[in-house]
Amino acid sequence: MNRSVLNRIPLEEREVLNRHRAFVLWLTGLPASGKSTLAYALEQALLKQNLRSYVLDGDDLRYGLSSDLGFSPQDRSENIRRAGHVAKLMVDAGLIVITSFISPYRKDRERVKALFSPDRFYEVYLDCSLEVCERRDPKGNYQKARQGRLKEFTGISAPYEPPLSPALVIPTGEMNVEESLARLLQFILNRLEIKP
Amino acid sequence: MNRSVLNRIPLEEREVLNRHRAFVLWLTGLPASGKSTLAYALEQALLKQNLRSYVLDGDDLRYGLSSDLGFSPQDRSENIRRAGHVAKLMVDAGLIVITSFISPYRKDRERVKALFSPDRFYEVYLDCSLEVCERRDPKGNYQKARQGRLKEFTGISAPYEPPLSPALVIPTGEMNVEESLARLLQFILNRLEIKP
Repeated sequence: MNRSVLNRIPLEEREVLNRHRAFVLWLTGLPASGKSTLAYALEQALLKQNLRSYVLDGDDLRYGLSSDLGFSPQDRSENIRRAGHVAKLMVDAGLIVITSFISPYRKDRERVKALFSPDRFYEVYLDCSLEVCERRDPKGNYQKARQGRLKEFTGISAPYEPPLSPALVIPTGEMNVEESLARLLQFILNRLEIKP
Repeated sequence: MNRSVLNRIPLEEREVLNRHRAFVLWLTGLPASGKSTLAYALEQALLKQNLRSYVLDGDDLRYGLSSDLGFSPQDRSENIRRAGHVAKLMVDAGLIVITSFISPYRKDRERVKALFSPDRFYEVYLDCSLEVCERRDPKGNYQKARQGRLKEFTGISAPYEPPLSPALVIPTGEMNVEESLARLLQFILNRLEIKP
């Protein structure tokens, strides 16, 4: 197949069909900072407005695409590399992609960012202190990590590098889900519109 | 995050929004059997009817998600495993996914098939003889493979295992693109409708 004869659909045409722009909201933050809760709440809110979005969830990838990977720094990097490429394909398909990955390393997030044009990738930092995250501990993982029963756990025995210049910061340690969602919706509102 | 509180959007709700079902058409066949040409022609045809589809292309994956992989049997398997998981995520996002991978090994295709319920995965065999594919040779790859300048090339120096019970066979050695496309459209027509 000569690639030049392949008649691909440009993203702009998909955006016209969907009546909104496509981009990725890359949520990053400590375990229990509220990434998945906020991601799924946003997906629901967007659906109510007939906006097409999809949550790429760290847990889902770990059970599927990245089931061959562990939690070493190398494997975490590879996991985020793959997630970035999947997000790129899904944005190219016209979707608003909401990712929910700890994605602890700055260089991994920067590498994903470099796959996108600047108006299609927004890094969103869920800023929640370790103390608050550990107090919440909905999965009991912080406790296990403190007891040494869970190795390489971000925040306890593995590092988390906060973004230096995120597109948006949401202080999820102080805001509840509704407030966080409102902040996020406000952020994307004027980024949805297709430019003529 | 307690997974039970996460409010995921069921695929059925996305299908209602899109007004068509979501599934994968897994095209398989020798190099130059017409997979990508047909895949992109179908994508165009579906867009004209406001149906949301996306071509997952072998070449694209090789430059992105699978850029760390080569063409050994193991790496081919891993490439197809990843492609299958990406296709699954995209179907879950409500899209008609059209894949264009040689996917030469039967067991790799079976493994992908097992990720889906039976009415969401259709294996489509583009049946074109090696002679015809080699005569076409749009990328000049068969010639390079015959000269030994391209190693592990499917059909020449690497095996291709045709499907045993594909959902659809298209004899692309005898049919042109328009005829092949018509056959494919006919196949999916009564699979698009959302069951009440």
